[in-house]
Amino acid sequence: MKVVLNPQFGSHDVQTEIHQGKMVPSFENPSRLKHILDHFQAHPGHDLIDSNDYGIDPILKVHARGYVTFLQSIWADWCAEGRVGDIVPYIWPVPGLKRMDHENLNAKVGTFAFSSDTAIMAGTWEAAYQGAQSALTAFEMVRAGERAAFALTRPPGHHAHSASYGGYCFLNNAAIVAETAREQGYDKVCILDVDYHHGNGTQDIFYDRADVLTLSIHGHPDTNFPYFLGYEDECGEADGHGFNQNFPLKDGASFEDWCGAFNQAQVRIDHFQPDLLVVPLGVDTYEGDPISNFKLKSEDFLKMGQLLKSLNLPCMFVMEGGYDVAPLGQNVYNVIEGFDRS
Amino acid sequence: MKVVLNPQFGSHDVQTEIHQGKMVPSFENPSRLKHILDHFQAHPGHDLIDSNDYGIDPILKVHARGYVTFLQSIWADWCAEGRVGDIVPYIWPVPGLKRMDHENLNAKVGTFAFSSDTAIMAGTWEAAYQGAQSALTAFEMVRAGERAAFALTRPPGHHAHSASYGGYCFLNNAAIVAETAREQGYDKVCILDVDYHHGNGTQDIFYDRADVLTLSIHGHPDTNFPYFLGYEDECGEADGHGFNQNFPLKDGASFEDWCGAFNQAQVRIDHFQPDLLVVPLGVDTYEGDPISNFKLKSEDFLKMGQLLKSLNLPCMFVMEGGYDVAPLGQNVYNVIEGFDRS
Repeated sequence: MKVVLNPQFGSHDVQTEIHQGKMVPSFENPSRLKHILDHFQAHPGHDLIDSNDYGIDPILKVHARGYVTFLQSIWADWCAEGRVGDIVPYIWPVPGLKRMDHENLNAKVGTFAFSSDTAIMAGTWEAAYQGAQSALTAFEMVRAGERAAFALTRPPGHHAHSASYGGYCFLNNAAIVAETAREQGYDKVCILDVDYHHGNGTQDIFYDRADVLTLSIHGHPDTNFPYFLGYEDECGEADGHGFNQNFPLKDGASFEDWCGAFNQAQVRIDHFQPDLLVVPLGVDTYEGDPISNFKLKSEDFLKMGQLLKSLNLPCMFVMEGGYDVAPLGQNVYNVIEGFDRS
Repeated sequence: MKVVLNPQFGSHDVQTEIHQGKMVPSFENPSRLKHILDHFQAHPGHDLIDSNDYGIDPILKVHARGYVTFLQSIWADWCAEGRVGDIVPYIWPVPGLKRMDHENLNAKVGTFAFSSDTAIMAGTWEAAYQGAQSALTAFEMVRAGERAAFALTRPPGHHAHSASYGGYCFLNNAAIVAETAREQGYDKVCILDVDYHHGNGTQDIFYDRADVLTLSIHGHPDTNFPYFLGYEDECGEADGHGFNQNFPLKDGASFEDWCGAFNQAQVRIDHFQPDLLVVPLGVDTYEGDPISNFKLKSEDFLKMGQLLKSLNLPCMFVMEGGYDVAPLGQNVYNVIEGFDRS
């Protein structure tokens, strides 16, 4: 499979994450991708290629211009005011306060962020921008006839809404690809999110649309981030009613449980008959993941790849979560191998 | 003047505050009140008295029961799950996510918090609860005929809304006193907030009511916390239209600027003819304050006390902000002295 690397994956390297009331080293860090990359380089059989640059326009089809401008400029603005340290959100315009355009940097950050675990630093925009480009490049491979392609990138994307960031995500790479595919003549696109966490941003972006079917198999939001979205009763609205489906699984779910959800998703996909499958690929469903609670084993990811292949669709993988760093390369590689070799 | 001390002021002693992307020692800490108390003890002339306990009911007249239950139980719930460290909010149900009742502790915290600078620990509820009692006790002194009384308490209160906390505040002591006064036969109450920061919680709680006039002189929200409330055009709504007035001043404002705003507030108060004046008293308007930007000097606080006395109303002070710890005692004492001796 063609594997498109985000060359700027290391530029976003925040020092800090709020976790259990303390600042701890961020779980989402460059070593994650380094481990995956090392594994692919040590196990030939997949072509590692550089990403092209498709510019800002495809990003602006999904994300609000004001939000993109914020991401592009906030670090420079922060430094220009003589501020130091990662940018960590600390106030939110919740009900009772006024949601408004604001020039103050603290207020801007609070307007666009939904979780304080996600810091911004010097290279954040570059990493996120090039990540979107790597996803677009992988899509271009599929459009040109590849059976499948894989965008190997970080930071992840599926928690990012049209105009807000959080859960380590800034630009929604899967949504950007889906929207681009729609514009390039793919009539129907399905996004099947297999990351441990619900793809709240992706769901929200396409919630009122019938042309992009969004499905997500994930840890139940009763007990897992993002808590406030990802329930079974969220089915889409307006034209999109019936075109979103969530498969939340209880903590401790096994691969057998996961396959049960996948089988239901497959029925939905077969009925929808999409022209393209986009898979936000997180392997934080792994049993050893430090911030997740499923019980998948490394060999299960081979089978997951096979199952995804069995959907028999042109397929675009885009890297999302997975935080048990040592086995991360093996687990991601297994999905891609399982897909390619079946 | 009778000075009612919150005996539990030291119970809320969080280790952490998010500031400029780092965890730093909280600006709002027990040493603040210790300095003020030391100053009053070293300068006789004011009676330091203990607070009574008026129970939970007066608190529930202002704060939603679900919010109060959360404050009462969250630390025990947190510990019962084996969690360690101060409770620091990290996800918010912003637009795009669903605002909902949630059993998960992270989600509960996110539902009730509006800023991540405000941590919760073992003694937070006790400190906040006894703070409200000290305010009620001071009010009782005034109701019994004292010309004025001062609730010497922390954590502060004026940023707390009916069902959310932030800006170091959990229970809105001034609002609890105002509501209690209304129930005990005071027809009209004026709250004149002189803390450096806008009293967003107080404003919001009484925003649709004509019986409690809320006024606030503060650092402009264009550049100051809470950013999303405190503008000049916020005049109240429904029955409360015309009964809220904000006097935001630019960074660098002098005492002369402050007096200009006070004079306007005085006109409004004279016209309203309240039966009771409640003054959320912050001295973070002091020139040396580390997180504020006015230029008041210590002697200006004497004059501020005189000005407040000149309103010629029964008066209740309740302690709010002020973070330059060394001169804090002198500055607070000056307001009380200025009031008493004029």
